[in-house]
Amino acid sequence: MSQAKPLKFVSLLGSLRTGSFNAVVARNLDLLAPEGVDVSALSSVRDIPHYDADLQAQGFPETVVEMGKAIAAADGLVIVTPEYNYSVPGAMKNALDWLSRLPDTPVAGKPVAILTASPGAIGGARAQYHLRQILVFLDGRVLNKPEVMIGQAPSRLDPETGSITDADTRSLITAQLSALAEMAGRQG
Amino acid sequence: MSQAKPLKFVSLLGSLRTGSFNAVVARNLDLLAPEGVDVSALSSVRDIPHYDADLQAQGFPETVVEMGKAIAAADGLVIVTPEYNYSVPGAMKNALDWLSRLPDTPVAGKPVAILTASPGAIGGARAQYHLRQILVFLDGRVLNKPEVMIGQAPSRLDPETGSITDADTRSLITAQLSALAEMAGRQG
Amino acid sequence: MSQAKPLKFVSLLGSLRTGSFNAVVARNLDLLAPEGVDVSALSSVRDIPHYDADLQAQGFPETVVEMGKAIAAADGLVIVTPEYNYSVPGAMKNALDWLSRLPDTPVAGKPVAILTASPGAIGGARAQYHLRQILVFLDGRVLNKPEVMIGQAPSRLDPETGSITDADTRSLITAQLSALAEMAGRQG
Amino acid sequence: MSQAKPLKFVSLLGSLRTGSFNAVVARNLDLLAPEGVDVSALSSVRDIPHYDADLQAQGFPETVVEMGKAIAAADGLVIVTPEYNYSVPGAMKNALDWLSRLPDTPVAGKPVAILTASPGAIGGARAQYHLRQILVFLDGRVLNKPEVMIGQAPSRLDPETGSITDADTRSLITAQLSALAEMAGRQG
Repeated sequence: MSQAKPLKFVSLLGSLRTGSFNAVVARNLDLLAPEGVDVSALSSVRDIPHYDADLQAQGFPETVVEMGKAIAAADGLVIVTPEYNYSVPGAMKNALDWLSRLPDTPVAGKPVAILTASPGAIGGARAQYHLRQILVFLDGRVLNKPEVMIGQAPSRLDPETGSITDADTRSLITAQLSALAEMAGRQG
Repeated sequence: MSQAKPLKFVSLLGSLRTGSFNAVVARNLDLLAPEGVDVSALSSVRDIPHYDADLQAQGFPETVVEMGKAIAAADGLVIVTPEYNYSVPGAMKNALDWLSRLPDTPVAGKPVAILTASPGAIGGARAQYHLRQILVFLDGRVLNKPEVMIGQAPSRLDPETGSITDADTRSLITAQLSALAEMAGRQG
Repeated sequence: MSQAKPLKFVSLLGSLRTGSFNAVVARNLDLLAPEGVDVSALSSVRDIPHYDADLQAQGFPETVVEMGKAIAAADGLVIVTPEYNYSVPGAMKNALDWLSRLPDTPVAGKPVAILTASPGAIGGARAQYHLRQILVFLDGRVLNKPEVMIGQAPSRLDPETGSITDADTRSLITAQLSALAEMAGRQG
Repeated sequence: MSQAKPLKFVSLLGSLRTGSFNAVVARNLDLLAPEGVDVSALSSVRDIPHYDADLQAQGFPETVVEMGKAIAAADGLVIVTPEYNYSVPGAMKNALDWLSRLPDTPVAGKPVAILTASPGAIGGARAQYHLRQILVFLDGRVLNKPEVMIGQAPSRLDPETGSITDADTRSLITAQLSALAEMAGRQG
């Protein structure tokens, strides 16, 4: 990366619980990002009411407006989420439902990377392909490779210390953020 | 249907707005059900907080508990939902996320029918296949046919009067509820 | 299983190569089936030409007709397939494309179980959900649980000896065939 | 498009029958392409044997090798296919299965557009999202918008004359090819 000014990515987290594996991943993104790339967290999806067009008619919730501005200003969006019931958590989907209605469609054309972590072997893969289909409508430019599906998370992350203990997982995340940076640079 | 006692289905609605096409569909289910089948509405998905395992640790929300009991007591579950961003609305998915965690897994083994309505030509099909994948995990017995995807909803439903104006759509819904009744009868 | 006469399942294999992991799985089904259940292999999908409606107009290929008869006569269908490119192998899909056109729709209403094996961690999960969507159209009654996705196949199967070396995998397959037998019994 | 040299796209057709709606679409692509864009047809997927790793070990079929070279040399790939059984036709998937194994991975990084036509209302949408998942593995850069799903094909295309009779459909195809050209130009 020989970019004069750093790339700024924002991350959106799909889990609400304190000891979340995915929260550990999200909090390590900035540390693991390649040189010249900053990653900062968007606000929690918790604070967004269930999407309701009648509510939208009264004005978008402030959290959604701010989230939309932050995504619009960023060079890329990093989605970190658990898989619930073979798909995207309702709370994460709800945030995307609101973001999709913003008049300036902040996700459109934006480079997007997806990471999932789970205790099982499959590592959230099922949620990723649902997310990809959703992001076709939002017109995000979703990175193909490398995919980051962190299976058997308890053996790779430590929610107690907040660190990613597995070196291969750390390398994979850095590789993905580098690929996203390359995609973001190509676009400019 | 020569059943001694009527079958009881419960319906879950994925839309929150007042003038919702899907709300019209949901409210017409009982009217369109075949003889010997009653359909009653579950409470709104609006009242359910975003799923959070920490919240669950303090006890399931009362709405979720009641919803679970009603599903457990019913002979079948009818899901009526719009498609948001090529998938299931966040609020609907969130209700399913909570229901999936109830200790008695009320959806497991339960006959399930899916209906979607939308203004576009595709009629919510994309949401239906995501729902089907989700329901594999919840172990619902999802009816295959007939599928009910009500495209170009404004020409088939009237949110003003609350009626389904298109006779073919009414017949299709009756046919689907009859098929669900047959599946529910077979199970007993 | 206290059934007077045995249940007969037929298996369809999606791989053509000699040393296939999935072929090992398919060949072990009869051995691993619970008492009272026989599993026999359908002919190879290799011998079926690419689906072409013009060809169909001249008559269904003999292999397809025979395969359809065998499925129609069976109590259940067991699909064993690798995942190619995050979906169902073309050759397997082609067999299903032909079977779906048979006038008597042999798969309709038939209990179906899906097994996938792969060298990777995900074990073919992505192919399974595509198969499930396909089988909605064919109106198969696809078993929800247990799902059989055999990841890291080289550590669980031995194509040299043709045996499934991992005891948990053997138990899981037996459990799935038992569940399919229960579904098939319930239907009768 | 103010490009000095024309862009060259190649098209891959998923249907084999003579009167195919999708064949009509494929044959009209070059006519409907914007100025500076040529679209030529790849050979038929019919001539490709079912994928078999043992066959591959003996050498790739000549058709696959030639198809791979043509895709590698093109500025973009246009996939035109019917939906069979809610997914991609076996013959089309088989072609992709072979192409994915070519050592130079010709689809990787290549701009890709998808068009589907069908007699029903849904216009092949279900096949498109399966294709998109498949193309994640092949690392194609699949265009998000506009999506081209030609429903009720008999009212929009005429297989007798080979023409696309509906002006909106023609405009939509031109708009998609223009968007693909823009993506291809951006990449260079």
